[in-house]
Amino acid sequence: MHSHVRIDPKLDLTFERVVDVPKELIWKVWTQPEHLMPWFCPLPWRTIACEIDLQPGGLFRTVMRSPEGQEFPNVGCFLETIENERLTWTNALLPAFRPVTHKAGESVDFLFTATIQLATHGTGTRYTATVRHGDEAGCRQHAEMGFHEGWGVALNQLVAYARTL
Amino acid sequence: MHSHVRIDPKLDLTFERVVDVPKELIWKVWTQPEHLMPWFCPLPWRTIACEIDLQPGGLFRTVMRSPEGQEFPNVGCFLETIENERLTWTNALLPAFRPVTHKAGESVDFLFTATIQLATHGTGTRYTATVRHGDEAGCRQHAEMGFHEGWGVALNQLVAYARTL
Repeated sequence: MHSHVRIDPKLDLTFERVVDVPKELIWKVWTQPEHLMPWFCPLPWRTIACEIDLQPGGLFRTVMRSPEGQEFPNVGCFLETIENERLTWTNALLPAFRPVTHKAGESVDFLFTATIQLATHGTGTRYTATVRHGDEAGCRQHAEMGFHEGWGVALNQLVAYARTL
Repeated sequence: MHSHVRIDPKLDLTFERVVDVPKELIWKVWTQPEHLMPWFCPLPWRTIACEIDLQPGGLFRTVMRSPEGQEFPNVGCFLETIENERLTWTNALLPAFRPVTHKAGESVDFLFTATIQLATHGTGTRYTATVRHGDEAGCRQHAEMGFHEGWGVALNQLVAYARTL
C-alpha cells in the first residue's frame, strides 16, 4: 500500500465491506456504463446517463434523476484505473485533468476524490471506498447527506445486480 | 496521443521548443530535487526547497525565494509520471489526490494542471509544456505573469545546467 493512502478522520469518509462477488465482476459493473447504471443510485433515484473513458485523465460522467424528475449531472475525471484493483476519480478536475471552476447554483457544492479498492477475500471481495475532501465542512456535509447509508444501499444493489450477470 | 490532450486556446497555454539534450537527462533534472533546484526558477529568483514523491498521487513541493527574500511555497500532486515521456501535476489537488481548499491571502490564486511532454528529436528532445486552467481569467492571469518568457528562461537554465552533468 502506498504511503499516500493514509486516512485523515476529519477530512475523509470510508466504507468497507466484504461481499460475495469476485473482484473482476465488481470491476466490470463499476467501469462499463450499461452495467453501472442499474445499481449506481439508491432507488427510487435513477442513473439515467453514464459516460466512462477509462484512463487517467478520462471522463467519468453520470446523470442522476430524483423521483420528482429533477436531473443532477456529475462530471469528474479518472485518476487511477488499475484493472480489478483500484479506481480513483475526482470532481475537482474535468477531463484532461483540467481544474474545475464551480459556478454559484451548481449542484456540486463540495469537492471530493473517491477511491474504490478491491482485494480478493475468500471467494469474494473486500470492498473499500475512501472519499477525501478538501476541508472539514465538505466532509461533514457529505456525511450528513447520508454517505454511509447511500454507499451501503448502492453496494447492496451492486451485489444483487452482479448476481444476475 | 490520447484524445484528452486536445488544447483549448482560451484556457490553455503551451510552450514548445527542440533542445539538444537527450530526454532521459531532461527527465532526471525534472524529477530529482537536487537537479531541479539549480534551474527551476528564472534567476535572480531561487528555488530553495523541493520535495518530489514521483508517483501518481505523490507530493510535488517547491519553495521559491524572491530577490528581496520573500518565500513562495507551491504544493501540488503528481498525476502522470511516465518515465522519460510525460510528467503531469496540478495545484488543484494535494497529495493522495485530495482536493485543495485555498484560503484568502495565499500566494496561489489560480488553479492549473501542467504537463511536460518529451519526445526524441534527432539527438535532442522536443520539449512541450501545456498548462491547463479552470477558466479564462486564470489563463489570462498566468499569461500576463509572463508564462512564455518564464518557461523559456527556465528551459535555457535547464539546458545550461544539464550540460554540466
